Amino acid sequence: MRISPLIDQLIDALQILPGVGAKSAQRMAFNLLQHNRAGAKNLGRLLEESMQKVGRCNACRTFCEESRCGLCSDERRDASVLCIVESPADVIAIENTAGYRGHYFVLHGRLSPIDGIGPEDLGIPLLLERAQNLNVKELILATNPTVEGEITAHYISEAMAGREVLITRIAHGVPIGGELEYIDGGTIAHAFNGRISVG
Amino acid sequence: MRISPLIDQLIDALQILPGVGAKSAQRMAFNLLQHNRAGAKNLGRLLEESMQKVGRCNACRTFCEESRCGLCSDERRDASVLCIVESPADVIAIENTAGYRGHYFVLHGRLSPIDGIGPEDLGIPLLLERAQNLNVKELILATNPTVEGEITAHYISEAMAGREVLITRIAHGVPIGGELEYIDGGTIAHAFNGRISVG
Repeated sequence: MRISPLIDQLIDALQILPGVGAKSAQRMAFNLLQHNRAGAKNLGRLLEESMQKVGRCNACRTFCEESRCGLCSDERRDASVLCIVESPADVIAIENTAGYRGHYFVLHGRLSPIDGIGPEDLGIPLLLERAQNLNVKELILATNPTVEGEITAHYISEAMAGREVLITRIAHGVPIGGELEYIDGGTIAHAFNGRISVG
Repeated sequence: MRISPLIDQLIDALQILPGVGAKSAQRMAFNLLQHNRAGAKNLGRLLEESMQKVGRCNACRTFCEESRCGLCSDERRDASVLCIVESPADVIAIENTAGYRGHYFVLHGRLSPIDGIGPEDLGIPLLLERAQNLNVKELILATNPTVEGEITAHYISEAMAGREVLITRIAHGVPIGGELEYIDGGTIAHAFNGRISVG
């Protein structure tokens, strides 16, 4: 290109965004230069500030810029239920349903010995401590239904063994609105194994 | 969400990017926080710097942070040919073909009386002056084949009337690799009208 080194650098830098390739990055750069310089400056400032300041909540390990996140410091939430998820995005997905009022614990990953990810990396010692401190009555395992997610759920339930805590796993089956005809076999098998009495 | 005001702001700010909605913005924010903080800080810095420093080349009006862009200051280029395009992205598209070695002039838009965009907004007085100074022999009109792009091309060719300059328009027709069966009627009609003798 050689037209402007700064724009070339900006186009390269935009490609760190997931799902953005060379063509979209160029379109983004020109679009911002042409139509929204103020918005782009603001985005730049927020990127720098967030990457600098955002850490993890001391209690639930989700991303937040304070020592304690908005959910953990909300006293109206039910401290007797703790939901374990793999990522901060899972917290938001669950919050958006507005059906859960307990607390969370974010693993930031899943057990994966092959990648060298062990219980300490997922904060499991902190989780055990927190379950005790909050006097948790129910621990909901909401890791993903992948092999590693299941192993992680299993590991946590084993680690909690002997404590007086109800350990549950969210249901996996046919999604609402889904049609059996189009659902994969693994999910259907799960749905049959997890069937509940309704009569 | 209320989990972290800073992350919420970042997710909002990312949505100024073309093609990025709430869901992708959230994915981008968490992905950067999780995997690439250094890259994101760099992107933030470049966004701020580019929006501050990038202006227009004094000669061809393309985006650049110097007073004159890399193409205009390249003395190996053929100053006798000037190609008129609507946007800086068009310059890059043409440069990527590596088949054109002349100069450019970027309109940053097209004539559109209904939006209040007149010849001055497109730098047409500067274009006329530049065509004279460079002692241009050929002016290639490469505005887009839309109604407004055609009107703009027509306006420029009228404004150049009386000067000893060859004025050409790039060919519009069936794209290479395209199949007639799938091409729209307007393009086919253009291709017939613009047919050239090969025998």
